[in-house]
Amino acid sequence: VSTPAGPPPDGSGEFGLIAWFRARAERTAAVAFGIGDDCAGLRFTPGREVLITTDMLLDGRHFLSAEHTPEQIGRKAMGVNLSDIAAMAGVPLAAVVSVGLPLHHGSRSAEELARRLFHGLNGMARECGVALVGGDTNAWDGPLVVSVTVLGEATEKGPVRRSGARPGDVVLVTGRLGGSLASGRHLEPRPRISEALALHQAANLHAMIDVSDGLAADLNHILEESGNLGAVLSAMAIPVHPDAERAAAGDGRSPLDHALGDGEDFELCFTVGPDDANRLLAEPPARVTLYRIGDITPESGLRLAHPDGRVEPLEPMGFDHLGGDAERSAP
Amino acid sequence: VSTPAGPPPDGSGEFGLIAWFRARAERTAAVAFGIGDDCAGLRFTPGREVLITTDMLLDGRHFLSAEHTPEQIGRKAMGVNLSDIAAMAGVPLAAVVSVGLPLHHGSRSAEELARRLFHGLNGMARECGVALVGGDTNAWDGPLVVSVTVLGEATEKGPVRRSGARPGDVVLVTGRLGGSLASGRHLEPRPRISEALALHQAANLHAMIDVSDGLAADLNHILEESGNLGAVLSAMAIPVHPDAERAAAGDGRSPLDHALGDGEDFELCFTVGPDDANRLLAEPPARVTLYRIGDITPESGLRLAHPDGRVEPLEPMGFDHLGGDAERSAP
Repeated sequence: VSTPAGPPPDGSGEFGLIAWFRARAERTAAVAFGIGDDCAGLRFTPGREVLITTDMLLDGRHFLSAEHTPEQIGRKAMGVNLSDIAAMAGVPLAAVVSVGLPLHHGSRSAEELARRLFHGLNGMARECGVALVGGDTNAWDGPLVVSVTVLGEATEKGPVRRSGARPGDVVLVTGRLGGSLASGRHLEPRPRISEALALHQAANLHAMIDVSDGLAADLNHILEESGNLGAVLSAMAIPVHPDAERAAAGDGRSPLDHALGDGEDFELCFTVGPDDANRLLAEPPARVTLYRIGDITPESGLRLAHPDGRVEPLEPMGFDHLGGDAERSAP
Repeated sequence: VSTPAGPPPDGSGEFGLIAWFRARAERTAAVAFGIGDDCAGLRFTPGREVLITTDMLLDGRHFLSAEHTPEQIGRKAMGVNLSDIAAMAGVPLAAVVSVGLPLHHGSRSAEELARRLFHGLNGMARECGVALVGGDTNAWDGPLVVSVTVLGEATEKGPVRRSGARPGDVVLVTGRLGGSLASGRHLEPRPRISEALALHQAANLHAMIDVSDGLAADLNHILEESGNLGAVLSAMAIPVHPDAERAAAGDGRSPLDHALGDGEDFELCFTVGPDDANRLLAEPPARVTLYRIGDITPESGLRLAHPDGRVEPLEPMGFDHLGGDAERSAP
């Protein structure tokens, strides 16, 4: 990390920009030292596992710089990483950010872009109690790229893994699903940090993931990691987001298809034993919405049960981030 | 992080690639759980500060994908981050990597590129005892971008900051400088991790930085962070790398100019009190080379003392990563 302190008199250039970040970056008690050295130094609770996650957002794949504001792009880049900490019922503590800024419009506008991205990144960090402790700012001839790494720590109950689902578990989600990309909702992820912590405290969560690739694909990750278990989802029980209805009206696919296959909802999907499920559904933690959507089975594979009794296999419909078809990813 | 486990039958696509990484990624005792969940989980020594650093490498700025192999690019991306941990005399423990792979040649070659980058990244990590615990792999229409974040921890003596230099300190460097970009040496950074730890054990290091922007610019960071101190460097004492001689023969600038201004040497520059300096120079730790290059002064500003007695101001010559002129950065 290049993080010198002294800005040139006009406050511009790389070092002026870093000084500008340094004066504004969110700090918390977890920060021993932040921007301004070769590394940042952090303090974690002794004995807790440190959690780390990283996600890179690319112009044309995860956002469109011609349509979305830098503040939105910054908020999304921070939010999707915070969502990964929430998915393990962790407490997010600190973030670092690297950006590649397009030079097409000159270095002046690269700096302006950097400042606006920072507002989005830092704003989302602040709202979640997360310190922004370092980064790397470069300009280049390529499109905008933003890479965020977030550190957190497990609570005293430990992290909730993907791999802990058990046959007989109930599958729940924390919100309505589908249509996030078509509606632009994906640009304002609301990482379910407090919801995850409240659920972790209230029940024995067996497995959890955030819905980023799509419900079917993400639940499938839980099934595979838990020893190739299966699940039967109830078609009637899937909470369909109004955005999924709108997306369906536009493309002829069903709202349920959108709820099962669309990504970037950033709701939590988790499994608990039947007693915990009943207790949580009867008395959900404050400000947590819960939907019971299905059950874990010992037979592997994901299936969908229809109201008429039909049960059909459900393809994971995972989004392949390596694919050349940017249709689904370029919102 | 998208890190599912089950590869498709042909082992290709995003999930096949992640399974391929997962089977090969370097693991260490610091890893509670690595690739395969929403986050990785790490264990640090209780009570030690956790160090974090991040650097993003961009095609055309920090490497040239048409000239350099993916393995070289991967090694450099990991190495420059490890060098930042070394600069604080920390112990590097774990890394995450995000990549944006160009789709120009189809998704097949994006996968091949990803595997070759991984070999470079993982190889450098292994040589330094660092676990590769997660990442994010995407393909896009832009050029290759590689972003690495490394975590480490301070030793029981704590991290060595940039801000601890004192008037009367002696300035030392661990190796010859200059010509790294012109020669291609910048692609094989050798992070001075063990050297930093040995020096930290043997002496009371007041301030340290790695030479990435150039000796004058990096020493200037120390001076500014230490309360706007100054330094006088001895022109005769600057260790000039043979690559700097060659670069000078090519462009007409002096070898000394290259040694003072070129970046990406990744040697350590540090300050110690005079007694420690004398002791270290008389008996350097095993396998550590040391050059005494100057002294810290209470008056601010960096100066260069010539053999004839002239003392002239030395401009920091820092490389501005926001600048539109890619000449110096595109090696």
